Amino acid sequence: MDNELIEKVLDEIRKKVDLKNFDQEQLNKIIKSSSENLMQRQNNDIRKENKIDNEREVDSMSAPSPITEYVGTSNYGDTVGLVIANVDSMLHEKMGIDKKYRSIGIISDRTGAGPQIMAADEAVKATNTEVVSIELPRDTKGGAGHGALIILASEDVSDSRRAVEVALRDTNRTFGDVYGFDAGHVELHYTARASYALNKAFGAPIGKSFGIIVGAPAGLGVVMADKALKTANVDLVSYASPGNGGTSYTNEVIITITGDSGAVRQSVVAAREVGLSIARSMGQNPVSTTGKPYI
Amino acid sequence: MDNELIEKVLDEIRKKVDLKNFDQEQLNKIIKSSSENLMQRQNNDIRKENKIDNEREVDSMSAPSPITEYVGTSNYGDTVGLVIANVDSMLHEKMGIDKKYRSIGIISDRTGAGPQIMAADEAVKATNTEVVSIELPRDTKGGAGHGALIILASEDVSDSRRAVEVALRDTNRTFGDVYGFDAGHVELHYTARASYALNKAFGAPIGKSFGIIVGAPAGLGVVMADKALKTANVDLVSYASPGNGGTSYTNEVIITITGDSGAVRQSVVAAREVGLSIARSMGQNPVSTTGKPYI
Amino acid sequence: MDNELIEKVLDEIRKKVDLKNFDQEQLNKIIKSSSENLMQRQNNDIRKENKIDNEREVDSMSAPSPITEYVGTSNYGDTVGLVIANVDSMLHEKMGIDKKYRSIGIISDRTGAGPQIMAADEAVKATNTEVVSIELPRDTKGGAGHGALIILASEDVSDSRRAVEVALRDTNRTFGDVYGFDAGHVELHYTARASYALNKAFGAPIGKSFGIIVGAPAGLGVVMADKALKTANVDLVSYASPGNGGTSYTNEVIITITGDSGAVRQSVVAAREVGLSIARSMGQNPVSTTGKPYI
Repeated sequence: MDNELIEKVLDEIRKKVDLKNFDQEQLNKIIKSSSENLMQRQNNDIRKENKIDNEREVDSMSAPSPITEYVGTSNYGDTVGLVIANVDSMLHEKMGIDKKYRSIGIISDRTGAGPQIMAADEAVKATNTEVVSIELPRDTKGGAGHGALIILASEDVSDSRRAVEVALRDTNRTFGDVYGFDAGHVELHYTARASYALNKAFGAPIGKSFGIIVGAPAGLGVVMADKALKTANVDLVSYASPGNGGTSYTNEVIITITGDSGAVRQSVVAAREVGLSIARSMGQNPVSTTGKPYI
Repeated sequence: MDNELIEKVLDEIRKKVDLKNFDQEQLNKIIKSSSENLMQRQNNDIRKENKIDNEREVDSMSAPSPITEYVGTSNYGDTVGLVIANVDSMLHEKMGIDKKYRSIGIISDRTGAGPQIMAADEAVKATNTEVVSIELPRDTKGGAGHGALIILASEDVSDSRRAVEVALRDTNRTFGDVYGFDAGHVELHYTARASYALNKAFGAPIGKSFGIIVGAPAGLGVVMADKALKTANVDLVSYASPGNGGTSYTNEVIITITGDSGAVRQSVVAAREVGLSIARSMGQNPVSTTGKPYI
Repeated sequence: MDNELIEKVLDEIRKKVDLKNFDQEQLNKIIKSSSENLMQRQNNDIRKENKIDNEREVDSMSAPSPITEYVGTSNYGDTVGLVIANVDSMLHEKMGIDKKYRSIGIISDRTGAGPQIMAADEAVKATNTEVVSIELPRDTKGGAGHGALIILASEDVSDSRRAVEVALRDTNRTFGDVYGFDAGHVELHYTARASYALNKAFGAPIGKSFGIIVGAPAGLGVVMADKALKTANVDLVSYASPGNGGTSYTNEVIITITGDSGAVRQSVVAAREVGLSIARSMGQNPVSTTGKPYI
């Protein structure tokens, strides 16, 4: 990514420099605009490789890959979707997949757990698949949080494939309230009706309104959690901190809440405001990964 | 940070380039000086955002933040200080805070555990607060070590706030013997009298002389530990390695020692010398994060 | 590393720019070539600091270091080799070293576990040393995988030193099938005869053919594992995923296999092909760390 940045700066300089009119003024402008671009991106710790990746996704989803297992990539978080039509029996057993399923769908990424789990939750609602496991590596490519490995299963591979496609697309929505900045991130999720992926990952009550509140470094998450719980009448489902076993030693505090739909949303929004304000007080500039907050 | 570097190079070029006299010689000089600056910083894996952050800290500590929970930031390690005057009862319970305290102080960072714990130890000595928990995420923004989440508690919020302020300031001292380099880091701490934060984090005997010795990658820490224990008559309090449960899977070996004040200091200094020498033999250039070793 | 890149670009510009003929065309060429260099390196997430480090290794191995514990560095993965002739008794006990050994050899690195363990396996075969412990920090400097801390022991320090030297050199071979790319890595290892290091780390049957298959992000590893197990008649020795305790929360799926020598090799090669193809379908460009695949 850093190399991409350098490359883009060089590219911009190349595009803009006309050496006939090459003077101090102009150089200043070029450098200033490049610097501003860099600063903007710097605030986006969680990668938003949108344009390039958009094309790549379209390509990879439409163009035939030589690998039948390959479904496609998402625009965010280095998320890849894969399927196996007929899982090898030894692997099937080790992965703890129910015997009635022979096919699996895989959603795997470097940056983000919440967005991919939320997306998988929608995918499970929309397809005939079941959640096998959700595992959270310590990752984000040097950032403060997780990646994810989500395994879905189905009797027929077409169901797994469909679920993976739905999930990959839905990350365009669910990354909307992931706000990256140099020193950490603030992340919010909300659904009016939790399903099996959220239940598997966080113990969400099925069919109920559910919210996820994440702050990094972890101290931000503590204050966000406090604000969320004070704002409306919601129940605390889970509290995870760097050392309590609920994270994979990430630098995050993560709480999940349930309750009345309006109350959950209100709490999540209040947590977002306090999280973003603290980040700004720290001299950071948090920005939405997609530019389109969804809550 | 990398983007900041790029930005600064561009900035320097902008400042220095006078196109009227724009010739090969000058360009060489500009680039050479920029390169040297870059190399110098490169050796400082653990961030030393001194000037900018200094101003930022002063600003954030003096200027009113819209968030009452926000106390300020430290110059090093992306350390932020926060307080909650009256912790929500559900959160209070989940965090395992003693019922007699309603206020908490939070010290949270991306890079460094030792410096912040040492600073919190001084803060606890100086204020009417108690240590609730110290958790160590696997972090350092892609480096080999930890971040930290330190929770202090008090009956009155002013005590927590005061403790957080003391701790943030003291990191200017405690980062003095953190030596970063591209391949890892060497870190030392020493106090003549350990208090409750060091006790909580490492089992330090209260009121006794105490030293912390850290090397990364972990192999450096092994040799540093050996040297420390051979140098003077000290007792080994704890030995933590990547896989023995004492770290959060960081690439460090950390030992802590106690004993006679002179002996502990002598051991720490000897460990520092061997650690820095190995780093230099590896072709690295370890430098003090603050430029002011304190031991 | 990123700063090195910046520095090198500046260096290249410095070398190539002749301001007398400084025109748009030329600037374009310079920037294009710099960009291409950058892109090439970007695809090499796992560092291949070959030329510089080669010299450095030769230097450090031949030039006397002031530290008798220092053996040298490897070309890859920030790997350092160290020895302690006579381990301090307190440390000896904490590290769980057999009483009959007073010397240890240390192989410690930031990036890579498989290559260093494979190399240590050869070292143990070639020398009179024993494996004490193999620990796997979550590292790779922001990448998706491990570092390693490998401790060997011997009665005489010359044996430990020799083993460390053998292992450092052998990483030139074992990094051949480590393929880095921006979004993760694909890594393969194969030996016709596993020894004590592979046994310690993965439970490999001593003296039997053994293969290691790693994919990151973890989903790649799942598909590679499935392919390997379907390709030939091999036995699954271990299956490690981000959350099942087999990794240190890395973003990898790692399987190890044993069986007939030809079958193991065939499985490993098939896994490599599918892993590299998926990476390419993701728009990545995986390249061998050394440029010389060994399987």
